[in-house]
Amino acid sequence: MPNRTVFFVSDGTGITAETFGNSILAQFSTKHRHVRRPFIDTPEKARQILEEINTTVATEGQRPIVFITLIDEEARRLVHDNANALVLDMFQSFVEPLESELGIKSNHRVGRFSDVAKSQEYHDRIEAINFSLAHDDGQSARNLDSADVILVGVSRSGKTPTSLYLAMQHGVKAANYPLIPEDFERDCLPSMLEPYKRKCFGLTIDADRLSQIRNERRPGSKYAALSNCRYEINEAERLMKRAGISWLSSTHKSIEEIATTILRDIRPDRLIY
Amino acid sequence: MPNRTVFFVSDGTGITAETFGNSILAQFSTKHRHVRRPFIDTPEKARQILEEINTTVATEGQRPIVFITLIDEEARRLVHDNANALVLDMFQSFVEPLESELGIKSNHRVGRFSDVAKSQEYHDRIEAINFSLAHDDGQSARNLDSADVILVGVSRSGKTPTSLYLAMQHGVKAANYPLIPEDFERDCLPSMLEPYKRKCFGLTIDADRLSQIRNERRPGSKYAALSNCRYEINEAERLMKRAGISWLSSTHKSIEEIATTILRDIRPDRLIY
Repeated sequence: MPNRTVFFVSDGTGITAETFGNSILAQFSTKHRHVRRPFIDTPEKARQILEEINTTVATEGQRPIVFITLIDEEARRLVHDNANALVLDMFQSFVEPLESELGIKSNHRVGRFSDVAKSQEYHDRIEAINFSLAHDDGQSARNLDSADVILVGVSRSGKTPTSLYLAMQHGVKAANYPLIPEDFERDCLPSMLEPYKRKCFGLTIDADRLSQIRNERRPGSKYAALSNCRYEINEAERLMKRAGISWLSSTHKSIEEIATTILRDIRPDRLIY
Repeated sequence: MPNRTVFFVSDGTGITAETFGNSILAQFSTKHRHVRRPFIDTPEKARQILEEINTTVATEGQRPIVFITLIDEEARRLVHDNANALVLDMFQSFVEPLESELGIKSNHRVGRFSDVAKSQEYHDRIEAINFSLAHDDGQSARNLDSADVILVGVSRSGKTPTSLYLAMQHGVKAANYPLIPEDFERDCLPSMLEPYKRKCFGLTIDADRLSQIRNERRPGSKYAALSNCRYEINEAERLMKRAGISWLSSTHKSIEEIATTILRDIRPDRLIY
C-alpha cells in the first residue's frame, strides 16, 4: 500500500519531528508524500489542519499518517481524536512514561526553541559559525589557538561543509585548512599548523570520487584528473600519518556522520553535557 | 527527582534521536546529564553500553533514562530487556503501529544516512552550501538568478547563519545581501537586487539587541551605537516596504524558526515533497 500522505503537525518548526519521523518511515520501502505544517499553536489552526487531513482521505481514498507534536492540549485532542488517520503522537508517547518515572508533571512548554535566541548555547553556536566562516579554507591564521578542531585535507574532501555543520549544530569552532601541491613538494605540513597538530583532524576521500567531484567544477582539468587526485591523496595521507593526525574517509559518509565521528575522537566531552 | 543521567543509544549518529529526545525532556524542568553513544551497531557494543548503564545506577543511586534507536534486533533486546533504567524505544514505539497500518513489515534498515552521500538530495545540499558561501554578504552578483532566496537586512541581523542553515538543512540556495548606509543615502535598494525583488526576504531586528550584538564586535563604535542602529533599521524597513519585500524580526527567533518561516513564505513547496 504505497503513496500515503504523511503530515507532520507541530506547534514549533516541526523540523525535529519531521527528521525523526522520516527516519522511522525509512524503515519501510514505500514512497510517501510529505507535508510539514509548522506553527500550529492554536485550536483554530489545528481545526484547519484537521480539515486538510480529512479532505486527503476523501481525495486519496487512503487515510494519511499524521505525526503530531502538539503541546496545547485542546489542539492536540482535536487532531488526535478527530482525524481519520493513523495519528502518531510523538510527544505524548514518551511524556507519560517520563512523568511517572520522574514523579513530576510535564510543564507543557511549547517548542524546544522558546527563547533560545537569548541563551548562551545559542550565542555560542552563532559565534562558532562566525569563527568557522572566518577560518574557512585556510583564510586566516588568527586565533587558531581558540579553534576546537582544525580540519585538514585536499581540496574538495568535505572540509567546508563539515566545519560549518560542526559549528551550526554543536557550537564547535572548526577551522579548516587545505593541503595543496606546494605542501607536498615541500614535504611538510603548512607551518602555521605545526603548533596545533594535536587538534588537527584529517579528511580523505577515494580518488575516483574526488575526481568526479572536481570534474563537476573544472571539467577536464589537471586538478580533476584521476592520476592527480591519486597523487594528492597519497601525499596528504603520508603527511598526516607522519604528523600523527588521525583521519577518516568522507567517501561514503554524510557530513552528520563525519561530524559525529570527529566529536567522538577529538572532543568526546561534547557527547556528554 | 533531578539529575538523572540520560543516554541516547543509536546505531547511527544518534543526532536525530538526541534532538528529539531533548525536546521531550524540555517538557520537564529538571536538569539532566546527557550521554550520547553513537554507532552502537553490534550486540558486543550494545553489551558494553548495557554495562555502562547499569554501572550508572550503582554510582548515582537512581536509574537512568535511556532513549534507544537500535534496528539490530539482538542489540535492541539486550538493552531493552536488561537495562536497569526507563528505556524509551523510539523506533519500536512507532514502527509497530506503522507495520499494521501499512500492512507490511519494516525492513530494519540501519540509519537514515545509509548511502546518503551518494544521493541526489545530499548532492544538492552540498551544492547549496557552496552557493550560499559564495554569495555570503553580497560577495558575488554572479548566478543570482539561480538563487532560491536572497536575504537582505542590515549588518548583524542574522542573514549569514540563516542562509547557511537553509542550504545545509533544506538544500536551498540562499544568497544574502547587506543593506548599508550608502543604500540609505541613495535611498534605494542595491541596483543588483532590483531584478530579483520577488525572491528577496528581509530580516530585521530590535535596535537594542542589534546594538548589543554589534558592541560585542566593535565596542563603543558609531556602528554599534543605539542611535545608529535605530537609524539603519528604520531606513532598511522603509526600503523593504517600498520594494514590497516581506520581512520578519530575528530578535526572538532561532535560525531554525527563521528558516521555517522563510520556507513557508517563499518556497511553500519545500514543505511538501
